[in-house]
Amino acid sequence: MQPKTDAPEYRQLMIDKLRENNVEEFRSLFFELHPYDQAKFFLKLDQPDRMLLYQILSPEEMANVFENIRDDKNRYKSLLEEMHPAFAAKMMEYMYADDAADVLSELTKEKISSYLTIMDAQAAKSISELLDYEQFTAGSIMTTEFVAINANYTVRSTMDLLRKEAPDAETIYYLYVIDEEKHLVGVLSLRDLIVHEDDTLIADIMKKKVYSVSVADDQEEVARKMKDYNFLALPVVDFQHRLVGIITVDDIIDVLDEEASDDYSKLAAVSDVDSYDPNAVSAAKKRLPWLIILLFLGMFTAGLIGQFEETLNKVATLALFIPLIAGMAGNTGTQALAVAVRRIATGEGTSERVWKIILKEAGTGLITGTVCGIVVALTIFIWKQKFFLGLLVGLSILSTLTVATIAGAFVPLVMHRLRIDPAVASGPFITTINDMISILIYFGMATLFMNYLL
Amino acid sequence: MQPKTDAPEYRQLMIDKLRENNVEEFRSLFFELHPYDQAKFFLKLDQPDRMLLYQILSPEEMANVFENIRDDKNRYKSLLEEMHPAFAAKMMEYMYADDAADVLSELTKEKISSYLTIMDAQAAKSISELLDYEQFTAGSIMTTEFVAINANYTVRSTMDLLRKEAPDAETIYYLYVIDEEKHLVGVLSLRDLIVHEDDTLIADIMKKKVYSVSVADDQEEVARKMKDYNFLALPVVDFQHRLVGIITVDDIIDVLDEEASDDYSKLAAVSDVDSYDPNAVSAAKKRLPWLIILLFLGMFTAGLIGQFEETLNKVATLALFIPLIAGMAGNTGTQALAVAVRRIATGEGTSERVWKIILKEAGTGLITGTVCGIVVALTIFIWKQKFFLGLLVGLSILSTLTVATIAGAFVPLVMHRLRIDPAVASGPFITTINDMISILIYFGMATLFMNYLL
Repeated sequence: MQPKTDAPEYRQLMIDKLRENNVEEFRSLFFELHPYDQAKFFLKLDQPDRMLLYQILSPEEMANVFENIRDDKNRYKSLLEEMHPAFAAKMMEYMYADDAADVLSELTKEKISSYLTIMDAQAAKSISELLDYEQFTAGSIMTTEFVAINANYTVRSTMDLLRKEAPDAETIYYLYVIDEEKHLVGVLSLRDLIVHEDDTLIADIMKKKVYSVSVADDQEEVARKMKDYNFLALPVVDFQHRLVGIITVDDIIDVLDEEASDDYSKLAAVSDVDSYDPNAVSAAKKRLPWLIILLFLGMFTAGLIGQFEETLNKVATLALFIPLIAGMAGNTGTQALAVAVRRIATGEGTSERVWKIILKEAGTGLITGTVCGIVVALTIFIWKQKFFLGLLVGLSILSTLTVATIAGAFVPLVMHRLRIDPAVASGPFITTINDMISILIYFGMATLFMNYLL
Repeated sequence: MQPKTDAPEYRQLMIDKLRENNVEEFRSLFFELHPYDQAKFFLKLDQPDRMLLYQILSPEEMANVFENIRDDKNRYKSLLEEMHPAFAAKMMEYMYADDAADVLSELTKEKISSYLTIMDAQAAKSISELLDYEQFTAGSIMTTEFVAINANYTVRSTMDLLRKEAPDAETIYYLYVIDEEKHLVGVLSLRDLIVHEDDTLIADIMKKKVYSVSVADDQEEVARKMKDYNFLALPVVDFQHRLVGIITVDDIIDVLDEEASDDYSKLAAVSDVDSYDPNAVSAAKKRLPWLIILLFLGMFTAGLIGQFEETLNKVATLALFIPLIAGMAGNTGTQALAVAVRRIATGEGTSERVWKIILKEAGTGLITGTVCGIVVALTIFIWKQKFFLGLLVGLSILSTLTVATIAGAFVPLVMHRLRIDPAVASGPFITTINDMISILIYFGMATLFMNYLL
């Protein structure tokens, strides 16, 4: 039997029941859905309908819905604010602590503490501890709901404990073994557990070598580690190697997805391609800062060409090839940039090899430049019957491509060494730098060899 | 205790033992490592050292290593060829069928069947079945090593079965329930299983609504589904709804990563940013096809400007703003393109709303165009003291940005409806189209209003 999803007809049926205040039928339809589809249904409702929903669902049921709107974080704030504060606080008590912390982190300090004060003390404590970790660290994405056992437990007593904790823990497939000071001393999987006799001591079957990450580790590093080693969960330890939380694979998928979107956005010079704006004005507001910066960089390029106005006045034909040369410089630079950024992102761009990479890119630039230079020179010669013009454009392409390729690789690598996110050196910026370089080369050569062109 | 990784000193120690043929010490060092680190160590070895390794490791141990070189698929072929064929075949028998199929899919048909014939018949059958599924479908990434049970099993008999199958199955955390015709009829998690009494019937505790995917579903869709619903595994059914395999979360992470890289590569006009070439010639070979195409597109732009040579001869200053206008058109088009491509990738760009998106983008383009147009007109007026030139460039920017934004969103959306991968409409192509549009607008207006410019 295929589960129901929020198909348009089903959706409309639910909305009808909701508005008729037919609580029973609405609830039976609603709970047919997977929490993710419940969240999708919820997000598409208009505000009056959402207000009806808050009357019908318990805070615990609403918590389940709220945990599944991870992709629309920008809506957390306004949704919380339309709920009754007591309802919202109760709901966050029922959420996994890491998800609740995620929701609260979108609010102001004052708002956060006002919610925490009306919450159950225990829940408030775990949430506020998570809020203390810096953004983008392992601490900020970990959960504190995990199963920890002692090495002197038996398989039987562990299974008993699991049966009790299973409903609350985020994962029960890895069990972490701690000593009296809460130091992480071992790990075993549920798979290991079930294949052993009931009387076996945990100490005898646990793995003593445990892969773990520190609370302060970068979330992207943690994500790469989980991906490479195929873990379903990783323990997080503090600076004394005490177990403080775990990170599960679903959080990691979100991190990898965010980081990929982020790199992609920066290459395209948009703040965040994933936060789609249904509104033209707010979309324009997000894109304008980039465009204005690029506009002024473009004015510099115009100024640069202005320096060669005399040359241009003599041979106006030169203007024809400006977009071609600048465009090729931009394209080749973006290619080199993309390769370098991805290398760094996948952790392959180690510092020791920077010069080797640059050298290799210089070689690549020289080869592509030579080929493209010859092609363009021949084309112009055939098309315009002008030998020296073809030679000039060909040589410009050759030198431009070489320089642009090196610049494309060099800038992100250097930024990485200076600990700036290299993806910031986004496509358009490299393109603008390469525009200027290419124009300098092209007009410089044209001015030098003016006699041959006339 | 932190596990060992392939740090340089540790690595060197292993290589020394390997070359001394100190089998015992080498093996004890090697098996300290996680299979992923074993694979990393293996991949960095020179060929003579790898040949030594094949003598020391059993096919089963080597299978474990080979399953972890997923990120370097282009090396499968040459590595297999340097092994003794019988050793390679034995190794693939021990690998998970989906991983073995992945390795073999890099070879020619003849090679594949020669390996399959010397393999154990059972293993060869599962592998060749997987090889029959089309690339990029659920069938091609699923595994056939899963645990299936009957509804009339009890919790106890299921646990007994699990203990037996645990070492071979790729995951035991989801158990799939099938009827006599192998139709998928239910699912339960190991978590559900352990909280119930030993005598409970599976039929009474299984979930009858099972999320599943079809063998022919696109792998990207499957990945999105697993991400959205937070599944650790998804069952794959054939057209008669018979269970044929499962897809685990680790495979899905690889798919998401590949797709993100792919979109990123296309925006940058590189074939594949992730397959890093240490060699300049092969890197150049990969980038040249794109560059040559872009070169000829650039020649069209040159030809277009050539149509306005007379205008240029009269007012050479016009050339100054070519890169600015063309650049802005490129940037704004790439922004709109990136937003549209990501929307489609995340499954949000449904066909019904295409016109709404285009309309919204037109609004965004008009706003950004107006703002940038005013800024540039004022700047030129202050800088050059030329009122009409400023007005001309400002108006060109206004209309160019509007058109370019619409084109940036329109092209990928239309391609998506025509079932072409919209990411192919990569940044540089949109940029070239927008270059031409912008030049037509700019020089067209300049020619029309020539009297005011002189």
